[in-house]
Amino acid sequence: MAISIGMFDSGVGGLTVLREVERLLPDDSFVYFGDTAHCPYGPKGDKTIIRYSIENSIFLIDQGIDLLVVACHTASALSLHKLKSTFSIPVLGVIEPAVQKACTATHSKRIGVIGTRATIQSNVYQKAIHAHLEHAHVFAQACPLFVPLIEEQFGNREIARLIVREYLLPLKEHNIDTLLLGCTHYPLLHTLIQEEIGSDVVIVNPATACAEAVAQIKKTLLHLKKEVEEPLRNQRKVFFVSDDPVRFKETGERFFGYPLPDVIHVSPTNSLI
Amino acid sequence: MAISIGMFDSGVGGLTVLREVERLLPDDSFVYFGDTAHCPYGPKGDKTIIRYSIENSIFLIDQGIDLLVVACHTASALSLHKLKSTFSIPVLGVIEPAVQKACTATHSKRIGVIGTRATIQSNVYQKAIHAHLEHAHVFAQACPLFVPLIEEQFGNREIARLIVREYLLPLKEHNIDTLLLGCTHYPLLHTLIQEEIGSDVVIVNPATACAEAVAQIKKTLLHLKKEVEEPLRNQRKVFFVSDDPVRFKETGERFFGYPLPDVIHVSPTNSLI
Repeated sequence: MAISIGMFDSGVGGLTVLREVERLLPDDSFVYFGDTAHCPYGPKGDKTIIRYSIENSIFLIDQGIDLLVVACHTASALSLHKLKSTFSIPVLGVIEPAVQKACTATHSKRIGVIGTRATIQSNVYQKAIHAHLEHAHVFAQACPLFVPLIEEQFGNREIARLIVREYLLPLKEHNIDTLLLGCTHYPLLHTLIQEEIGSDVVIVNPATACAEAVAQIKKTLLHLKKEVEEPLRNQRKVFFVSDDPVRFKETGERFFGYPLPDVIHVSPTNSLI
Repeated sequence: MAISIGMFDSGVGGLTVLREVERLLPDDSFVYFGDTAHCPYGPKGDKTIIRYSIENSIFLIDQGIDLLVVACHTASALSLHKLKSTFSIPVLGVIEPAVQKACTATHSKRIGVIGTRATIQSNVYQKAIHAHLEHAHVFAQACPLFVPLIEEQFGNREIARLIVREYLLPLKEHNIDTLLLGCTHYPLLHTLIQEEIGSDVVIVNPATACAEAVAQIKKTLLHLKKEVEEPLRNQRKVFFVSDDPVRFKETGERFFGYPLPDVIHVSPTNSLI
């Protein structure tokens, strides 16, 4: 039986998560909401992020989803607890599954985390890793130029490599054996990051970890629902944004290199409360 | 007699404009509004930008300003016409004064313009220059990594120089004699840009050009008002933002290297309409 999976991010970044979930669950329906009118979330205040997250969730729940994925690291860090306690459907973030995976992968217990300035300053990964693996050594590094580098497709690969090298240098010096990509965009720099950090370091992609967790929850949901007769629903994949849909489609397609279906605009002030 | 000057930008960038206006008019009052809840404006849709601009202007006019400066290039490009026709006080943008200055400075009529992707794609500078100087050759170049480079104070100056060099190369090849900095942040890269584009190229800073235009309008305003008895007002300099004021203060101070007064938070949805 197919379920409907809702997902929000501040922009196109969450598409890396959507891609991985879709790869594992190709027959399910997806409703993606990019809150582009408020993008990026990273530099904004905690209360503002929580307010946006609640509004986005209400919108997606109104769309009839069975499960909600918070595909944004900042929103996962700040609002997951509030969303879980507010709504009755299962809510998943991108942080917890990735942290579990990193803690399983490490041998030396020396784990590197990279992310935006806001994510690193929030200490959310550092705390979550310590909660799983008490004696872990966590080395965190903000890489604030990675997102613009990816979104703007900076053409000069050698300069991109120098920037990646510059940011990863402290982590290399700390001899990490596992590196967690703490931002939805970073999987798109996977090859450069792997080359610069060294082939012996395990890179944990939160999008993959999150997709595996979603597949697991789907099983539980279906198990709970097996007694219930459900009407057949058509599979659908739909994209909503709170700002210009054409720009989202363009950036999203540039971001991934393959076509997206039509994107629908919804006004955040009128439709989301 | 002192006047009260209102100014808005999507974030801290407009502080470069504030600094120049204050330098010319040190005895006037300033009310700055940073619409940080919606920052950045560049990638957002036209209608959204116009809506934000109107809301910001109403808020500033409510603060009793005599003159409004739109210190944001994107908002100047998209909403200046609407603001001028809607409100009774004088409204100035950052584009027109800079274009006038560039057209006066050029000898070869080969003018370069750099800005964010959104500003360059909007063609606003290209059109404005042609309106002033019909046979000008305008060479426009988007430099989308400059803003994050500045805001994140990327430490490695050599990599910053390589990025500047990469973006300016096509303009150098076009033998421009004048370069217009079409983004509020870029004056902070002035030295690197001058070094890379060459000392014979005149760099036009829209913040300086805008400040000179504001001083000119102040003269006209005072001339019109000379018959009117005005109560004495205390000089004040006040900062409002629509998101976290602490972050604005931190980024603003990092941006400029000198302390800002306290910043006050106003909620965009509650207070601005």
